[in-house]
Amino acid sequence: MKNMITLLMFLAAVTITPSLYSQGNDVKEGSYYFSKKVGGTMADVKKEVLSVMEQQGFSLVTTMEMDKKLAEKLDVEMKPYLILGFCNAKYAYKVIQVEENIGLFLPCKVVLKQVDESMVEVVAVNPSSVMKMLGNAELNDVATSVTQKFREAMDML
Amino acid sequence: MKNMITLLMFLAAVTITPSLYSQGNDVKEGSYYFSKKVGGTMADVKKEVLSVMEQQGFSLVTTMEMDKKLAEKLDVEMKPYLILGFCNAKYAYKVIQVEENIGLFLPCKVVLKQVDESMVEVVAVNPSSVMKMLGNAELNDVATSVTQKFREAMDML
Repeated sequence: MKNMITLLMFLAAVTITPSLYSQGNDVKEGSYYFSKKVGGTMADVKKEVLSVMEQQGFSLVTTMEMDKKLAEKLDVEMKPYLILGFCNAKYAYKVIQVEENIGLFLPCKVVLKQVDESMVEVVAVNPSSVMKMLGNAELNDVATSVTQKFREAMDML
Repeated sequence: MKNMITLLMFLAAVTITPSLYSQGNDVKEGSYYFSKKVGGTMADVKKEVLSVMEQQGFSLVTTMEMDKKLAEKLDVEMKPYLILGFCNAKYAYKVIQVEENIGLFLPCKVVLKQVDESMVEVVAVNPSSVMKMLGNAELNDVATSVTQKFREAMDML
């Protein structure tokens, strides 16, 4: 009986584990970022990211195509790696009032990394982890709000 | 005699203090940045910053005029606040190899804040403080090199 239970637990684990890993669309959380694999070309996924960020109140203010920059300067080849900078004026104004050099970390970044022709990994900064580094408690409220908005945007993808 | 000494000490303090403060060109170090007050208009100082960064091997890749963005979106007035993003392809390539999501903190920023018509505060990120946050020891060497280049650029202003 005990062996049977062990076997059932083993089978359950084997059955459940791959389904957890196959949920490739789930948001993963790193120490300073959220990431999610999204189906589509770079152009498709970029459009989607702009749309969900817009819905969360953030507009695109800077773009850098790192792969093209490196190809041009170093003659190295890497997969498309796009760095997008987003800004919400209300939050930016608030944080500059309490930490005037926070502009060094603005706008907030979202990186798009091509995995293959039909899959892109979207990586958004976790604003709370950055603001924590600055050690200014007055930033906590905004950090929490912005982090929630970023996290929701990732869920919407 | 005691009064005379007190008077002399007072005079010395009055004489020395303004000269200390007038060394506005010295680089100050914050917990995550270097800063320096530089004489000139925003346009002049921006040109100078581009020149010293170029000499240190960094080229301008993003520009954001935060004050204009906030004026447009929120109808608030603030002094010119310019966020410049600089990149050195060799270092960028190196760090992406060992920390693939570091693009969230690239390009490295320098903020120009207008103090008054003839003075601008230049604030450069301290790359070591950011890389330390990422907790990846493989970044240490590049962090040290980039920090030195940024610090030298500030000294050159």
